[in-house]
Amino acid sequence: MTTDEIGRKLVSLCKEGKNLDALASLYSKDAESVEAMASEQVPARTKGVDAIKKKNEWWFANHQIHGSTVRGPFPNGDQFAVIFTFDVTPKAGSMAGKRMQMEEVALYAVKGGKVVKEEFLYSMG
Amino acid sequence: MTTDEIGRKLVSLCKEGKNLDALASLYSKDAESVEAMASEQVPARTKGVDAIKKKNEWWFANHQIHGSTVRGPFPNGDQFAVIFTFDVTPKAGSMAGKRMQMEEVALYAVKGGKVVKEEFLYSMG
Repeated sequence: MTTDEIGRKLVSLCKEGKNLDALASLYSKDAESVEAMASEQVPARTKGVDAIKKKNEWWFANHQIHGSTVRGPFPNGDQFAVIFTFDVTPKAGSMAGKRMQMEEVALYAVKGGKVVKEEFLYSMG
Repeated sequence: MTTDEIGRKLVSLCKEGKNLDALASLYSKDAESVEAMASEQVPARTKGVDAIKKKNEWWFANHQIHGSTVRGPFPNGDQFAVIFTFDVTPKAGSMAGKRMQMEEVALYAVKGGKVVKEEFLYSMG
């Protein structure tokens, strides 16, 4: 698949809430995930698709999701961006119980037909 | 300035339509600009702040701007993203006279307190 095809497939799966299917089918085994900031629960860097899957499962288990949107992909060369918005209430951590609306840019790097890096760009508060 | 401060300043200037001031004050002399695709008028890569300024001036001179929005910055490490939307009618090229709405993600890399690279992620049509 081309970078653009991977981007379209990823957006399509995330829109259906099938983020874990996107991970399983589109990511390299050694893919890296980079958060804008570390939290008590999630480190800034996560290496390997199995660890990224655990991070995703933690996120879904620890947030009540009231709504979300997924826009993209926005490609350029061997990378593409996706814009996510979330309306969530965290169940754990310092923000537990506080409903919040977030927008973030996710940036994906592709190599050899697989996503090798995802970076989440956002600011808190 | 930190990456986040540069991002906030750039967004603030772009919101006021002062894109050229952002270029003059926040960019490295050798900064590079990368489009998702080359067109008849604009190459995929533009090197140097003077050439980027010319590209900007060309864009403003050759588009009738009905509206635009600027959201961000969305930081992560030494980079930040900004989301732009445009409602424009091109005055030249194959799309001349065709009003269109666009959304794009701009990704900025910072080094030594200056923007050294801007990349525009988008798809056409």
